[in-house]
Amino acid sequence: MALAKGYAATDASKPLVPFTFERREPGDDDIVIDIKYAGICHSDIHQARNEWGNSTFPMVPGHEIAGIVTAVGKNVTSFKVGDRAGVGCFVNSCTACKTRDVDLEQYLPGLVGTYNSFEADGVTPTYGGYSDHIVVKEGYVMSIPENLPLDAAAPLMCAGITLYSPLRHWKAGPGKKVAIVGMGGLGHMGVKLAHAMGAHVTVLSQSLSKKEDGLKFGADEYYATSDAETFKTLAGSFDLIICTVSAGIDWNAYLSLLKVEGSMVLVGAPENPVPVHAFALIGGRKSLSGSAIGSIKETQEMLDFCAEHDIVADIEVIDIKDVNEAYERVLKSDVRYRFVIDIATLN
Amino acid sequence: MALAKGYAATDASKPLVPFTFERREPGDDDIVIDIKYAGICHSDIHQARNEWGNSTFPMVPGHEIAGIVTAVGKNVTSFKVGDRAGVGCFVNSCTACKTRDVDLEQYLPGLVGTYNSFEADGVTPTYGGYSDHIVVKEGYVMSIPENLPLDAAAPLMCAGITLYSPLRHWKAGPGKKVAIVGMGGLGHMGVKLAHAMGAHVTVLSQSLSKKEDGLKFGADEYYATSDAETFKTLAGSFDLIICTVSAGIDWNAYLSLLKVEGSMVLVGAPENPVPVHAFALIGGRKSLSGSAIGSIKETQEMLDFCAEHDIVADIEVIDIKDVNEAYERVLKSDVRYRFVIDIATLN
Repeated sequence: MALAKGYAATDASKPLVPFTFERREPGDDDIVIDIKYAGICHSDIHQARNEWGNSTFPMVPGHEIAGIVTAVGKNVTSFKVGDRAGVGCFVNSCTACKTRDVDLEQYLPGLVGTYNSFEADGVTPTYGGYSDHIVVKEGYVMSIPENLPLDAAAPLMCAGITLYSPLRHWKAGPGKKVAIVGMGGLGHMGVKLAHAMGAHVTVLSQSLSKKEDGLKFGADEYYATSDAETFKTLAGSFDLIICTVSAGIDWNAYLSLLKVEGSMVLVGAPENPVPVHAFALIGGRKSLSGSAIGSIKETQEMLDFCAEHDIVADIEVIDIKDVNEAYERVLKSDVRYRFVIDIATLN
Repeated sequence: MALAKGYAATDASKPLVPFTFERREPGDDDIVIDIKYAGICHSDIHQARNEWGNSTFPMVPGHEIAGIVTAVGKNVTSFKVGDRAGVGCFVNSCTACKTRDVDLEQYLPGLVGTYNSFEADGVTPTYGGYSDHIVVKEGYVMSIPENLPLDAAAPLMCAGITLYSPLRHWKAGPGKKVAIVGMGGLGHMGVKLAHAMGAHVTVLSQSLSKKEDGLKFGADEYYATSDAETFKTLAGSFDLIICTVSAGIDWNAYLSLLKVEGSMVLVGAPENPVPVHAFALIGGRKSLSGSAIGSIKETQEMLDFCAEHDIVADIEVIDIKDVNEAYERVLKSDVRYRFVIDIATLN
């Protein structure tokens, strides 16, 4: 066992505070990572505040982890000390399956979350990336390519793959018109990735306040959804709409922007159900779908794609003592476009 | 112009009554069909009662038409006098398109409905199948194979294609588990078609009252949705769920019955929107989709498939004077499984 330092939520209603805890002893299949940076995902806040009702405390959030390997177990072949390593939303997959489903593991029961979860033994809690190091089984660690800065690469582990996976699955690429709803941490990654895949990209944001950034990230068009004209102008325009917002919006209005056979994919989850008109789907063989992160294999593929296209997140690096203030700013969408904690500031 | 006899709704609140009207003069591209049978579709009732708010009166309903060709224009090559002919939900497609989209025409604007619509000229009303004859442009008439009885084949023109198209599009077949929600006019066709395609078929009906029929039609399993245990037993079971009911049911409960990457397809449309939880879709890359009828090309393909597998609707043939009583029975789901009007009873 090794002592780890980090920041934890000790209760749903309290701010995060410094916290010391034990990491498990690294086994023969494990990789020990010295954490350099950890991104702040909106879901960290949901869980730290028990808004999904499934939180256990104390909780060390963080599933956008970038660091350097400091030790490897004797069976480990894919990493060596000094390698650049990333960890995303889960650190083990379906423990009931005989064969690992390398393509869809993220959707199977038995997934071990990077934090707010339990190891395969069902009793050892997992603690996330707002901490100085982590012990992860080989096969659940990604290699961060050399040309991606570690700080701005950290958010790729969740925000990046969350957009990459549906863009690939629904075949964003040349000749396809893709709309990204929301220009936050997820949305800005969607614009960069869809553009790099060769799709025609339109941002649908509440206002035009981030338009300049959107075009810089690769958007071809940018519309304000607060303007009712937008929904008239763009009716029947898109092959694919990826909705990153977790506010309750009228999905039917967005479905009307799809072409025949178009798909709208939710990656943000509103707390309350949203009323859907059957005719909004029937009248064009349209689909409303959902997508969650990606497999480890696909996350590595995404990192390699990002390396090839020089894509990282746009970030604001913060000291870990400012994490609670950062949470408040995330809730106000006052971040361009992802907070990343500099873990060196723990000391 | 030729006078036609039929039954019409003259107003949203009145029963259908005998009605005489003019059919257009057949042109060089037209086929004249002596109507023998017309199925009663639930949407006939919705429209006769202006429940979708888009009705024009007088209205001669009926878009499940089976009959015999009595005349053809000089340019017509695909039909000759005496041929068995079917007409479905539309009699012309997108008049704005330069090239006809033979695969997706049913979803494009400019579709000319078989009734409660206007011809391509935008002013001549169309009248449906509750009548003695109809004049339809070549290319919008299906050939009814010899081995299918005309009366039981009539409902294939709408109920048949409504189920066939999504079953094909979402690849029902060997190794696939398909659920059909609802055992009415649409649902019973779904069971027969999905079974013939080689899928494993489960019926999800409110009660077990039609279980014997369901198994006879080809269902492998039959469950009552009024039993809460059903949703536990079948959780995560299906590749495809086709929902034929237009009552407002909890789609989230049905989405939980899908496997990872499964699709639920709506072919019945509840009047009011249904609340959908984003997590019900995100937690397994699931889709909620809609599907409407099929193209003329696909409808002919469906008829040929039915001929090969000896599939027709299970019907109750009625006299046209009993149409209003039949409407009431449809609303009470008191029909096994489709009413078909014997047009000979008009005289």
